[in-house]
Amino acid sequence: MFLAHINVSLKPTVNDPQGIAIQQGLRSLGFQTVEKVRAGKRLEVHLQESDRAKAEAQVDEMCQRLLANTVIERYEFELEEINATA
Amino acid sequence: MFLAHINVSLKPTVNDPQGIAIQQGLRSLGFQTVEKVRAGKRLEVHLQESDRAKAEAQVDEMCQRLLANTVIERYEFELEEINATA
Repeated sequence: MFLAHINVSLKPTVNDPQGIAIQQGLRSLGFQTVEKVRAGKRLEVHLQESDRAKAEAQVDEMCQRLLANTVIERYEFELEEINATA
Repeated sequence: MFLAHINVSLKPTVNDPQGIAIQQGLRSLGFQTVEKVRAGKRLEVHLQESDRAKAEAQVDEMCQRLLANTVIERYEFELEEINATA
């Protein structure tokens, strides 16, 4: 079994209103050192698959087809092998 | 300058409707190997701070006060040192 840790983030050139709102929130709380905030998604997907290459291909396809909007977002992921009982 | 990579995720015992929706979406697309999905947030915070210990303390306080709801969420972060010009 594999656990995929997937990060989906907006491409650097895309405007990020959520990040800006968080930045302003932090500054108004007194965190004046905050320069920039970018907000994204973090997904943990458990896969019933024993072959690492197949798991990798599947996760890549999931990101392309559903998890990320590749026009404005980019994604990266890591696969961690876990026990089925975990 | 530091860049903090922050992951905020729901605690394992907390119900995650977004994760369930994504899991069902993936399955209906034909990804039958998907067992479980948990959804969370990924934040990148740029800090104008030269001292690692101070940056770490600040990010921890940000998570406690704004970025995570520690009743139902947990957080973890990594600090990466970056150039001010980056």
